[in-house]
Amino acid sequence: MFYFAIDILGTMAFAISGVLVAMEKKLDLFGVLIIAFVTAVGGGTLRDMLIGNTPVVWMRESVYIFTILGTVVFAIMFVKQLKYLRKTLFLFDTIGIGLFTMVGIEKGLSAELMPIMCIILGTITASFGGVIRDILCNEIPVIFHKEIYATACILGGISYFLLIQLPFDGAYAYITAIIIIIVIRLLAVKFKIALPSIYRAGK
Amino acid sequence: MFYFAIDILGTMAFAISGVLVAMEKKLDLFGVLIIAFVTAVGGGTLRDMLIGNTPVVWMRESVYIFTILGTVVFAIMFVKQLKYLRKTLFLFDTIGIGLFTMVGIEKGLSAELMPIMCIILGTITASFGGVIRDILCNEIPVIFHKEIYATACILGGISYFLLIQLPFDGAYAYITAIIIIIVIRLLAVKFKIALPSIYRAGK
Amino acid sequence: MFYFAIDILGTMAFAISGVLVAMEKKLDLFGVLIIAFVTAVGGGTLRDMLIGNTPVVWMRESVYIFTILGTVVFAIMFVKQLKYLRKTLFLFDTIGIGLFTMVGIEKGLSAELMPIMCIILGTITASFGGVIRDILCNEIPVIFHKEIYATACILGGISYFLLIQLPFDGAYAYITAIIIIIVIRLLAVKFKIALPSIYRAGK
Repeated sequence: MFYFAIDILGTMAFAISGVLVAMEKKLDLFGVLIIAFVTAVGGGTLRDMLIGNTPVVWMRESVYIFTILGTVVFAIMFVKQLKYLRKTLFLFDTIGIGLFTMVGIEKGLSAELMPIMCIILGTITASFGGVIRDILCNEIPVIFHKEIYATACILGGISYFLLIQLPFDGAYAYITAIIIIIVIRLLAVKFKIALPSIYRAGK
Repeated sequence: MFYFAIDILGTMAFAISGVLVAMEKKLDLFGVLIIAFVTAVGGGTLRDMLIGNTPVVWMRESVYIFTILGTVVFAIMFVKQLKYLRKTLFLFDTIGIGLFTMVGIEKGLSAELMPIMCIILGTITASFGGVIRDILCNEIPVIFHKEIYATACILGGISYFLLIQLPFDGAYAYITAIIIIIVIRLLAVKFKIALPSIYRAGK
Repeated sequence: MFYFAIDILGTMAFAISGVLVAMEKKLDLFGVLIIAFVTAVGGGTLRDMLIGNTPVVWMRESVYIFTILGTVVFAIMFVKQLKYLRKTLFLFDTIGIGLFTMVGIEKGLSAELMPIMCIILGTITASFGGVIRDILCNEIPVIFHKEIYATACILGGISYFLLIQLPFDGAYAYITAIIIIIVIRLLAVKFKIALPSIYRAGK
């Protein structure tokens, strides 16, 4: 129930981030809806197609579609107010990333994949919605050159596989990994930590 | 046989629209062929990958490949004349959209998905070939900001699920839904109806 | 063992080509890694998703991931020297294309697809990593307008299906097809052969 609530909050935050990007691009209503949709479910969709978990999850569980539809209507109605909620949205988004990473890792474990593949699946789940959003909007994906986004997912995933070696209940490792992802991202944004540009490093 | 003929005509119209866009971008022969191909089969391919209906349909039925190859050769030979056929092409394209939407809905029903998912699959089948075409040509997909394209698919899909509640043969609902999609698109283009830009609405 | 070595060399060459493109775009470390990764495995991933061969191959065999990780570290450390190795890299890349084409054809035959579909799968395996790389970097894919890249794959694939009609061991056809692909590409680059731009032909 707790996980489900966070999953839905994460979906909403991702959908709103899609609405905001689509509006900047002056897309029409359908365009905004699609961008919100792919931002929210794109990562999980790619994950499910990669491991053959089809029909993909949002086709089997209608809650995602209705959550996104409701969120888009809400976001369009309250677009001015959203600008004052950026911090709250960022928090939802960050919590969503933490949970989506772990959802992806779980799916990888169910498919009996190696830990490194599970971590990749988790990172894809959390980050590729945003990548697809940026490609559809004709931008170089923001996570490739600005944010320490995927790095947080990867470090959280590694932590999870280290923590489940310890003699505690798996749920602790799960929750701790989510918290690690959230904390890394919050600290990175607060202190403006970014990965070095390889280009400059190469000079 | 009738459905099959329309399906092939739709494939041809989609392939020609791909050729025209690829030529504007000055792509080489292979580029033109690929763009024609993804425009014609891209929507159905994404649909099949989402529901796990693999190998995807054009890999199992060679008629699509040969239709597209023939269409591209024809389009390149008669490229000047094609400009005078824009209205006819637009009609084929619109008929194709109607049929492709219903093909996608049928596939969703076969996979026992909910009506809303079937409508989404139908819309993906009809419209994502054009989306992939535009992404490959480095444009923001035209359906996101200019055309009432997907809206016609969605309204047609909704009509279908309402009509099959009525005590008539399912084939009537099927054909009526196709006609609804075609008429909405024709009227929208004739009267230049477009979805409102959310951006302006938000001001 | 021989095939495997070439496969790994091809993966490395593709990964390095990804690193070089990503650096030109000034992506961060994660961006470079992702671009290297999709360049190297993108074609095979799309192939596996199209035929339903999931989890896709790099999820089941960790050698690809570790090869790419090692190659990226190496490429970043020796980025200056790489510029002097362009000819060697081009050779690896070309050998990789030959082998990747045949790997794709084999997968198509295993899935009992028609020869034309197998050739398409081979071409996708060899060329779509580069297409995805260019899309993620917000460029029109280079193979659509500059290189006789895919044409070499297609001609090699056709040769293979002609050669296996002859009363020799299948391995000869396999190796000969790879050599044909490599030779066509080398000759095309040496003599600057490109496919005609349809745009000009249409004038």
